[in-house]
Order: sequence, then C-alpha cells, then structure tokens
Amino acid sequence: MPAMRLYRLYISRERNYVRALNNMLGFVPGNLTLYKLAFRHKSVAPQLKEGLKNSNERLEFLGDAVLGAVVGEMLFKKYPFRDEGFLTEMRSKIVNRNHLNQLAKKIGIGDLMDYDTRMINNPIKQGSLMGDAFEALIGAVYLDKGYAFTKSFILKRILKAHVDVDALEQTETNFKSKLIEWCQRHGKEVLFELMPNEEGSKSKLFTVKVFVDGDECGTGQDFTKKNAEKTAAERACTFLNI
Amino acid sequence: MPAMRLYRLYISRERNYVRALNNMLGFVPGNLTLYKLAFRHKSVAPQLKEGLKNSNERLEFLGDAVLGAVVGEMLFKKYPFRDEGFLTEMRSKIVNRNHLNQLAKKIGIGDLMDYDTRMINNPIKQGSLMGDAFEALIGAVYLDKGYAFTKSFILKRILKAHVDVDALEQTETNFKSKLIEWCQRHGKEVLFELMPNEEGSKSKLFTVKVFVDGDECGTGQDFTKKNAEKTAAERACTFLNI
Repeated sequence: MPAMRLYRLYISRERNYVRALNNMLGFVPGNLTLYKLAFRHKSVAPQLKEGLKNSNERLEFLGDAVLGAVVGEMLFKKYPFRDEGFLTEMRSKIVNRNHLNQLAKKIGIGDLMDYDTRMINNPIKQGSLMGDAFEALIGAVYLDKGYAFTKSFILKRILKAHVDVDALEQTETNFKSKLIEWCQRHGKEVLFELMPNEEGSKSKLFTVKVFVDGDECGTGQDFTKKNAEKTAAERACTFLNI
Repeated sequence: MPAMRLYRLYISRERNYVRALNNMLGFVPGNLTLYKLAFRHKSVAPQLKEGLKNSNERLEFLGDAVLGAVVGEMLFKKYPFRDEGFLTEMRSKIVNRNHLNQLAKKIGIGDLMDYDTRMINNPIKQGSLMGDAFEALIGAVYLDKGYAFTKSFILKRILKAHVDVDALEQTETNFKSKLIEWCQRHGKEVLFELMPNEEGSKSKLFTVKVFVDGDECGTGQDFTKKNAEKTAAERACTFLNI
C-alpha cells in the first residue's frame, strides 16, 4: 500500500519517528509501539507490575533467539564442510555482546535510544545498552514483520553491509585474557567478584562484576560463574576500549 | 499435490520410509536425504573429508537454533508479564538434553535412527543420541519446509502433544547436585574429570567426563568448564535413570 506508506512517512503525527526508523532499517515499520519498546532501556522504563519494568529486556530475549537462528543458518550454508564446533564459534564471534554493540553503533541505534541521560557520560552504566537494544530491535522486527522478512533484513541490511564474516573467521577472542593482559601492561589491578543474589531470590543466575583499580567496569550474568565472568570481561573490554 | 503425496506414500521406492516419517511427523516429507542425515549418528557416518563426518551434527546445530527461537517466542507470548530471566530458565527446561531425549523417545525417533548397533546395550555410548537426533530432525524440517511450517510443527505436534509447560514451570533441575545426591545416597563415588584436548587442537571447547564408581556415565562439551560439567551431569542422570 504505497499510499499508506507515504501517509506514514510524510503526513502522520509520527512521521519523524517513522522516517528515522525507515532510514535506519530500510523499511517502513508497522507497529511503532514495538520499536519504541525495543529502544527503551530499563533506566527509564515504567513499572508494569511488581518486579517487571516495561523495558526492552523481553524483546532482547526474543531477538537474541531469532538472531541466533538466522546467523546459524547463514553459517550452516556458507560453510558446508565445517563441523558444528566451528559453526558455534563463528556464531559467537558474530553475536557476542561486544560485536553487537559495534553493530548497534554503526546502524545508529544511539539516536533513537531512550535511556536515563545521566548515563551518557557514564560508560559503566551504559554497558551493553546498545547491543541489548540491537537484539531487542531484531525481536521487534520479528513480531512486526515475521521470520522471512527479519531473516532478509539481518542478512542484507546488517550482515552484508557491516560484517566481514571471512575476516571474523581469522580472529581470536578471549576477553578475560585480553583484559588481564591489558591490565598487566598498564600496571592496573583487575578483580572479578561474584556478587551475592538478593536475599530470598530464587534465581540461578550468577552475577560477576569486574573491577579495574577498584572501579567497576563491567557486569555479567549467566547460569555459570565462568560465563558470567566472560560476559563481564567482554563488557569491561568494551568499556575500556581495549 | 495430492497425487504426488499418494505416489510418495504408496508407490514410490521409498514408500516405507516416507510412511514411517509421515506417521512420526504428521506430514509427508519432501527431501528425504535431509531426514536420513538427521537420523545418522556419527558412529556410522561416512567420512566427508578430513575431520568431517557426514553425520547429523551440523543439522543438530541448525535445529538447536530454530528450536530455541520457536520455544522462545512461544514463552514470550505465553508469559507476557514475566521477565527475561524467567523466560530463559523456562526455555532451558524445555530444550535441555534430558528433556529432548525424552521427547525423542516419545515420538519414536529410535525406530528410524541409524547408528552402530554395538551401542544398543551400551547406554554410555548412546548418551544423548536421541536428543541430538531430535534437534537434527528440527533442522531437517526447517531446511525442507521453512520456518513457518517448522514453527507450527514444533508447537502443535511436539509441544502441545508432549510437553506440559505449566508443570515444567514448577520443576527445579540442577543435574550436578541431583547426581551427587544420588551417589551419596547409594554409597557411590562420583568424579568429574576435565579431559585434555587432542594435541594440536585449537578448539576452545572443554570436555568433561563423569565417572561413577569408575565407570564413565556421561560426557559434556562446552565453552566453559562449568557448562561442560552441567551437560555431563545431565547425561549421567539420563544414563543412570536418576
């Protein structure tokens, strides 16, 4: 419906937002509520009910899964003679938090993000805000347009335009050792601290914080301490621009 | 094409296989090669090239991702007021190896599996053969029929028929402690052993084996030692019928 498209882009009350999204995504979005939610960080999200904020975190869960499937299939087809261990490693190079943060910045998610502006000069608090929103955006596109559309969006608009898969194949990333080496080189002390869960919490997630010379530089949460450390180290690397 | 459907079910050379799959899946499969590959364990797979067997392991990688996305979306929609931590835990209860092994048995994957028959009476070697093939089957359905079809297949034919999501919500599973408790109760010694990687291997995967009174009961592989242990413990629980 080109008339509807033109109306939404140039006449509707939301035309500026629709145009901004159209520029970023390459298509006119349907349900704007989804996209607004995808860009809403929990720091500014209203409470939906006890213990649940209306932030982008649920969409991030969905988008993460859809992104994993699309990237998984792309790798499956691109590398017909590589085993599943290789495919798993390659995928994690593409969808790791650090790389997603970079992608999010490349496509300009920052301009549309809705978050507590006191975080602007506080990279610690910002953390992986961008990468998280990127995944949430994928979740929004999926709910708005379905799987086939989202797949084509990810492959053409994101991977083809911004990711050099062949170059990634050659890279090696172990964020924990990267961080530790950097700290040794710069005479800084690095500390991984396992945080206690809130009293009464039944969550099985581990929370690990990384401190560099006493300053908190990254937090990771996962079902295993090792993975929580890995995420925390990755975020600290982003934070410190290592 | 009902004529083609009838031909494939009752006349074609492969009619028995097509009928068996039709009974299991509820639809007439297209590309049989994919399904045969999904049911082919590495113990009988021909070498495709140096280091790669033509087994179901790559399809398992793909199916795992597709299953994660479909189950993720189902949970996202079923629980609109639960946070992403809850959704993640619920998903892992559905797609954990133990549960997938059970599902695979329920739908009768064993009858179509192609594996070294010397494994029949050796549950150690069998391990998660069934659950792995179940994921590979999802990968095959996806390549054969596309995402929408696969989603509907998983939701209607698998989850609705065989999984009580509400009951799973109440269960608690920590396979490592489950295994350790069981061994203590039965006066058995349990040992988690980290296996060295093959010399020259660049893989970053950890391999952990569980031994109960000296007998190997399960193996796990993952990027973290903790996760490898978890998988190994889960498989040992399956093996020992705990």
